[in-house]
Amino acid sequence: MNCSILAIGTELLLGSLENTNASFIAGRLAENGIDSFLQVTVGDNEKMIHRALEFCLSSSDAVIITGGLGSTEDDVTKSALSSFFHRELVLDREIESHLEERFAGIDRTVYQRIKKQAYILEGSRIIQPMGTAPGLILEEGDKLIICLPGVPGEMRFMMEKSVLPLLVSRGKGSQDVIISRFLRIVGLSEPAIETAIMDIVKAQQNPTLAMLPGLGEVQIRLTARARGREEAQELLGTVEKQIRERLGNKIFGIDEEDPEKVVGDMCRKRGLSLSAAESCTGGLFSSRITSVPGSSDYFRGSVVSYSNESKKKILGVRSSFLRSFGAVSKEVAEEMAKGARNLFATDIAVSCTGIAGPKGGTEEKPVGLVFLGLCSDSMLVSERTRYYGSRKDIQYRATQSMLDLIRRFLLGEQLGGRGN
Amino acid sequence: MNCSILAIGTELLLGSLENTNASFIAGRLAENGIDSFLQVTVGDNEKMIHRALEFCLSSSDAVIITGGLGSTEDDVTKSALSSFFHRELVLDREIESHLEERFAGIDRTVYQRIKKQAYILEGSRIIQPMGTAPGLILEEGDKLIICLPGVPGEMRFMMEKSVLPLLVSRGKGSQDVIISRFLRIVGLSEPAIETAIMDIVKAQQNPTLAMLPGLGEVQIRLTARARGREEAQELLGTVEKQIRERLGNKIFGIDEEDPEKVVGDMCRKRGLSLSAAESCTGGLFSSRITSVPGSSDYFRGSVVSYSNESKKKILGVRSSFLRSFGAVSKEVAEEMAKGARNLFATDIAVSCTGIAGPKGGTEEKPVGLVFLGLCSDSMLVSERTRYYGSRKDIQYRATQSMLDLIRRFLLGEQLGGRGN
Repeated sequence: MNCSILAIGTELLLGSLENTNASFIAGRLAENGIDSFLQVTVGDNEKMIHRALEFCLSSSDAVIITGGLGSTEDDVTKSALSSFFHRELVLDREIESHLEERFAGIDRTVYQRIKKQAYILEGSRIIQPMGTAPGLILEEGDKLIICLPGVPGEMRFMMEKSVLPLLVSRGKGSQDVIISRFLRIVGLSEPAIETAIMDIVKAQQNPTLAMLPGLGEVQIRLTARARGREEAQELLGTVEKQIRERLGNKIFGIDEEDPEKVVGDMCRKRGLSLSAAESCTGGLFSSRITSVPGSSDYFRGSVVSYSNESKKKILGVRSSFLRSFGAVSKEVAEEMAKGARNLFATDIAVSCTGIAGPKGGTEEKPVGLVFLGLCSDSMLVSERTRYYGSRKDIQYRATQSMLDLIRRFLLGEQLGGRGN
Repeated sequence: MNCSILAIGTELLLGSLENTNASFIAGRLAENGIDSFLQVTVGDNEKMIHRALEFCLSSSDAVIITGGLGSTEDDVTKSALSSFFHRELVLDREIESHLEERFAGIDRTVYQRIKKQAYILEGSRIIQPMGTAPGLILEEGDKLIICLPGVPGEMRFMMEKSVLPLLVSRGKGSQDVIISRFLRIVGLSEPAIETAIMDIVKAQQNPTLAMLPGLGEVQIRLTARARGREEAQELLGTVEKQIRERLGNKIFGIDEEDPEKVVGDMCRKRGLSLSAAESCTGGLFSSRITSVPGSSDYFRGSVVSYSNESKKKILGVRSSFLRSFGAVSKEVAEEMAKGARNLFATDIAVSCTGIAGPKGGTEEKPVGLVFLGLCSDSMLVSERTRYYGSRKDIQYRATQSMLDLIRRFLLGEQLGGRGN
């Protein structure tokens, strides 16, 4: 089974929207052993949709189409399919009554528009929707045409629930599965990682290795191809072990294990509570920590102290420290962490003060200079570091370091390095 | 001039990398009046590259290719072009000496690999690189083929410096420019907006209108085509005015005017200071506010009170309120806002308390229930609202509402609605 992906939407051609649907579908196909060699994007334009369909069908057994199924004027996907395959658009009573029920009481003019979604291609089957726009499955000779909405949440729901099971059950062609695993690293640069594991990279054919540098972290992607899921996982496990022998604790997690989740899980497991005092990160640290479900188990809160006044009044930072060392200093970072720990009565508190830019830098204290603090019952420590990039980049990198500082503390590593 | 975009890279087919290059190139083409109706993505596979080239060339005057120009084994773009156009790969002495100089002293085995980059297609011209891989320009009959590296920074550099000037100077066909403007709306649903401006949408040919629903906001995209930038802006201005007559203050900004920037600018202009108390949003409000450069002009800080203890101790929320009404209640939202305003001594404070989920909901207080509070010298008010979606969705939507609450307050609108 070989499946191409056709994204429809003028937005995509104007560059105002990134085609995240294509990469999501591609990833899920690969994980399920379904080959995918082609992606095409065209606008909401019947002629171009026809040309793209022709090209996709000539190159693959199935086409997954996303976008243009909604109820606005420029949603022309169904009409383009209708003329391409010479199939009428017919009213589906079941969808109609479903819509009637859901939009009972809505303005009738609005409803007339929504009702467009109740029309389907003659001979097609419906994919049950999460939102209002249903998906469609069409068989044309030995080709399979699948239409999904462009709204990412609705598309993903249908992919997981209906499309992947269908494609897998068809099982035409290669039965190989391709599985990737991502090893995630904070605190080491890409060349440093490459040097450390160069020989492993060179020796590997399956899984293959690739280095993906990101904001404040580097990921090593391992991609294995095998007959089955288990065999692929085993191949991945063997190489992961080799890499871990080199990089050890520098690897903070794999795949979806974000730093905020890893740190949260460590705190929960040890029954430790956490709080924070943020200056230049402006709440981003707390926001990341609390984006994890169940974070109230360990997180008690934070103070975003964006003025000297609030550093003194709420966190108890000494005026003399602010005067002598300035708000961006190791001394103030430590006082902030101590203050947050007292205020929220937690086991651990972290802090961050720095210059996020783009203005406010001096020769002595340039944009990107950041001090991190950590306070526990046995320790009060700070680290100095320097980041580059935009304001948002610097803020994000600083929160990566705050999370990694907590992690290293919990692992019992030596803290206070980096030019402190 | 009509230009298609061909992205080459097996990564893209595995879904492990998003095709940000295509959306960047598409956006820059549109801004420069160059039509672009087609994007194709294939892997590092000569046969598929040939098929894609054929399709792109049959649909457009020019093709911009990205990816596969590097020095690793799987970079096959040049070799595929060589066989497709029957042109030899020849060593370019200038690139070679440039590489020799740059990589003097490097391991010879590594250098042999890098040297692959010094080979170019017979008869092609070089685009000067920022990194090591040069771009190529090839003219084949009346078609233009442009090859760029896949590394985003290098690709963007060549697009701006060489490719766009070349395409614009060619000026084949249309000299039109295409400019989009986005009107951004919080607090109205997509069908409600469509109903309100239906007749304008229908009457419009240039600019065209499209509705883009996003998380906690809807954008109306206006896209104008005209001979010059000024004329296009004028067309956009006329329709924007018509829409504003219908939607008025519901439009909070255009284009890059994020709510956090709009609210910040309003505060700065009026010399008002701002603070916050966050519970279920966990710092995301503060993080958004402080992501704007210069936000320390008006933002003093916030308290993320993630426990009842901290609500009482730091913000002064009455214990009896927490007992009688619960932490998620209008009474507590108001106390939190009042507490933040006192603590940070600001003109305005906002607050938020709710159930972000996925757990913790009850029949009476379901996941997604959120109370917002606002306190000023003359007002203490709250609003009740309900969101749907994931934990992160609910948190983000709540911060959209907090920002919009401040905006509506500053505009002198009636507050406290929505089932309060």
